[in-house]
Amino acid sequence: MKLPPGVSAEQFQAAVQRMQAVVGTDWVLTDDADIWTYRDSYTPFYGDQVAEYIPSGAVAPTEVAQVQQIVRIANEFRIPLWPISTGRNLGYGGSAPRMSGTMVLDLKRMNKVLAVDEHRCYALVEPGVSYLDFYKYLRDHKLKVWLDCADPGWGSLIGNALDHGVGHGPNRDHFASICGLEVVLPNGELMRTGSGALPGSKAWQTFPYGYGPHIAPMFGQSNFGIVTKAGFYLIPEPEVARSYHIMVPRHDDIHPFLDQMAAMVCDGTLNQSWQIDSPLLGSRDPKIAAAVERADGGSSSELDQMSRDLNIPYWGTRIYLHGSSKVVDAKWQDVQSRLSNLEGVKFKSGNAYHFPDDYDKVKDGDDGDVFAQTACGIPTMSIYGMGIGGSNLPTRGPRARLPHGIGFFSPIVSMSGEDWLGVQKVVRQTERELGMPLSRSAGGWAWFRCTLVLLYVQPIVDDPEKNLRMMDNVRALAKACARHGYSEYRTHTVWMDDVMSAFSFNDNALLRFHETIKDAVDPNGILAPGRNGIWPKNLRGKKI
Amino acid sequence: MKLPPGVSAEQFQAAVQRMQAVVGTDWVLTDDADIWTYRDSYTPFYGDQVAEYIPSGAVAPTEVAQVQQIVRIANEFRIPLWPISTGRNLGYGGSAPRMSGTMVLDLKRMNKVLAVDEHRCYALVEPGVSYLDFYKYLRDHKLKVWLDCADPGWGSLIGNALDHGVGHGPNRDHFASICGLEVVLPNGELMRTGSGALPGSKAWQTFPYGYGPHIAPMFGQSNFGIVTKAGFYLIPEPEVARSYHIMVPRHDDIHPFLDQMAAMVCDGTLNQSWQIDSPLLGSRDPKIAAAVERADGGSSSELDQMSRDLNIPYWGTRIYLHGSSKVVDAKWQDVQSRLSNLEGVKFKSGNAYHFPDDYDKVKDGDDGDVFAQTACGIPTMSIYGMGIGGSNLPTRGPRARLPHGIGFFSPIVSMSGEDWLGVQKVVRQTERELGMPLSRSAGGWAWFRCTLVLLYVQPIVDDPEKNLRMMDNVRALAKACARHGYSEYRTHTVWMDDVMSAFSFNDNALLRFHETIKDAVDPNGILAPGRNGIWPKNLRGKKI
Repeated sequence: MKLPPGVSAEQFQAAVQRMQAVVGTDWVLTDDADIWTYRDSYTPFYGDQVAEYIPSGAVAPTEVAQVQQIVRIANEFRIPLWPISTGRNLGYGGSAPRMSGTMVLDLKRMNKVLAVDEHRCYALVEPGVSYLDFYKYLRDHKLKVWLDCADPGWGSLIGNALDHGVGHGPNRDHFASICGLEVVLPNGELMRTGSGALPGSKAWQTFPYGYGPHIAPMFGQSNFGIVTKAGFYLIPEPEVARSYHIMVPRHDDIHPFLDQMAAMVCDGTLNQSWQIDSPLLGSRDPKIAAAVERADGGSSSELDQMSRDLNIPYWGTRIYLHGSSKVVDAKWQDVQSRLSNLEGVKFKSGNAYHFPDDYDKVKDGDDGDVFAQTACGIPTMSIYGMGIGGSNLPTRGPRARLPHGIGFFSPIVSMSGEDWLGVQKVVRQTERELGMPLSRSAGGWAWFRCTLVLLYVQPIVDDPEKNLRMMDNVRALAKACARHGYSEYRTHTVWMDDVMSAFSFNDNALLRFHETIKDAVDPNGILAPGRNGIWPKNLRGKKI
Repeated sequence: MKLPPGVSAEQFQAAVQRMQAVVGTDWVLTDDADIWTYRDSYTPFYGDQVAEYIPSGAVAPTEVAQVQQIVRIANEFRIPLWPISTGRNLGYGGSAPRMSGTMVLDLKRMNKVLAVDEHRCYALVEPGVSYLDFYKYLRDHKLKVWLDCADPGWGSLIGNALDHGVGHGPNRDHFASICGLEVVLPNGELMRTGSGALPGSKAWQTFPYGYGPHIAPMFGQSNFGIVTKAGFYLIPEPEVARSYHIMVPRHDDIHPFLDQMAAMVCDGTLNQSWQIDSPLLGSRDPKIAAAVERADGGSSSELDQMSRDLNIPYWGTRIYLHGSSKVVDAKWQDVQSRLSNLEGVKFKSGNAYHFPDDYDKVKDGDDGDVFAQTACGIPTMSIYGMGIGGSNLPTRGPRARLPHGIGFFSPIVSMSGEDWLGVQKVVRQTERELGMPLSRSAGGWAWFRCTLVLLYVQPIVDDPEKNLRMMDNVRALAKACARHGYSEYRTHTVWMDDVMSAFSFNDNALLRFHETIKDAVDPNGILAPGRNGIWPKNLRGKKI
């Protein structure tokens, strides 16, 4: 067992007993077999006796008052707590803490849907509610609203949103969909944000700001409090959801294409849920691959020609339009007319679903769309099997000798051709310098006025030396991107300090501000030490 | 002259000299004549030698480095600073501080438009840039983007947004349009939020979250830092902006009407910039007024009948749709079809403007729309003259014996008939108990899943006794609303403590959290004491 730093086995045992008195003996887990289930199966440190972050135990309350009591006990005994909702943050650390010895505070048993308003389109939920749970609730109650889902669907609404997760439907930005939080502060006090601070408020889930500073957003990607309830904006069930393909044939089309797409996101013609990639650059045809090699990430008349001759788009995207048939048709006409000056642009209609009739008809893979279900607010597990080595991976707990883990390198750049090409140039150059395999094609997802470039890191194998090299490589990639003005939006626990350190304006003023807040609200440093690079005073600057 | 609490005239003078060395002698203002220009001409305390909040002076830097130096001097001499952008926050305190003796930090001279991106649709500006300035910049540079404006147009983009101000165009929520801040912290340190903390970031104005906790929103309605730069989302110039009227004839129509309107806001058919009011209840016809009296705010078959017979809508709204003609037409058909089950509903087309041709044609008052210009992103001063006693009021500085001031009572309620009627019932009952004139008709503006009810408080006259009664009445109104779960989104400096005290969940946990942050980031309490109810430690709990 790994104990928290500075805590003796006796103290730990005393804390455990106190926690058992709160949640019952069954729900404080300290056996190795139980702890194993909270390990991150895909960490590059997996099985490394020293480096892997392994919790000291886990405690699973069912009520807010229990969370408060646990936090107070943790303060008394200086036991660090790592709150998880459903613990499915795979690719970013799973259910394991950032620091060995931290105790997992598992909120999965707090899984009530507390309210859904069909007209004002909001919900109030607890952390343990997953997308699958919530979708079932909506269908069981025949409610004509959608929730935007993350992939895969076993994730928590609250957990995903707080980690700035995104989906594939009309409300892609889950963090921005939050309206009103209930938070247990690191001292055990209960606080409600926004309108919810008014006792009996009738606008907790409809007006997020309340009065005074809007502090709810500081509880995402941080360790300032434990969210025990959150409101979410929902989407009225649309009459129709239709997908369309847009394809352009030349390398240089990326500039006007992304300019126009950005403008259409900004004026609401499009939502943010579309992905851009390059069927041409991703082709496995040896002739094309050779030409891609020669072009070396730049413009090439040879590739432009191949795109036309072989009818493989240089750049392509699939968009979904939701709403009434009339509005969807009008928007699609608009989209085509606004892109019509791109010579050789092609448009194609894809899936078309009508609601409420088609909930059971939408299937991932329809018309080649692996995101068909999430685009229609339907959580799915099928997405989980893609790209990460097959769908038969265990989700947490002991890992047999599997070939793959998951890790993401996630830079986010402005929605412009210059930055889209720019970040990939930096990545390619760095990969070459490091002797990494070159990323030939990268997919990017729209978000805000940005494109999120999501790259799978090199497979994580059970080879400690290779893993260390891979980890260093990702650090080098992040540094190279940062030097060119490109940052990451989220990262695995193992890289949190590295990513945060890139945000170094004025001698890391932002991180120091986070630390000032941390020291003020969590003087004993019990909440999630190291999360997003924020360490409590007693551990700050130590290599943990 | 009113000095800050605990500061001697000598200390103050020493601080002034040090500040003069930073910004030049001309830009530290301490003469009575200069100070007068920073007084709030419309405060209910106007001219009250004891109660009116009067600054000790003002200092007006031109650069961020000067702001930092001033803040450091303020810390050294314990001089409280009250930052203003253009100082036009009329109705909510103008340019005057919350506490007498606070020195105004006037940022009006920092008025550069630093960047505009036409495709990604964003701007980066300094605090002194007004809507009028920015609009001129857009037109001068022939940029095909809009900014959502507050009314009136001399206000600051940054100042308005930070006070959670709203506009009448497609990006109504100015606070939510912020992307990326530069902040001088109360200790004089410079910090950039979001992506901007990455040196040389290319996504400061396109990706607001950056990495780690999203702290930018805590700098609105607070006193945790001085914003010296902010990014704003803009709107692509639409092909057309069209207004439409929707009218329903019965009292009880409010329920299905607001349910449908809410759903159309939630799915993006409508933006949030529409206002609901009651032409019938606001009628000056004595017969109608008598019936309104009899109905006493409730449903009445007599009023329903009058609405039909006299063709005066019970409830009415004007919406604007922006975009391509095709999409606007399709949306309008949608709106009509979704409201068609309301018996007797009427639809009417209003203004239609095409861009870029019509910028000079749009005029406030077109088709009776006093918000025509702001609905089209065109700042205006005409709005300033409405409802507040004529357009010839001086804007700040000495007030001759004018009959009126401005003050708002601004509850915000969920977008439902129940709450829309509910809050007005509470207001009416309270007004009656207090012997105040009854508010016969109230206008409400959509915002989020909410309706913001904006009531003018009783005219502020130069009669100290009446003023005190009016202030107490507004306090009583706020308390009564709070008891029923309705809160305010913003208030005049004189009521800030009262409004914040209503957000009292768990022994004022939210305010205490604000105070914990305040003490951590501003231990000397120099920044805007009392703003939004947040007092520094040394002044907390004192009656100031």
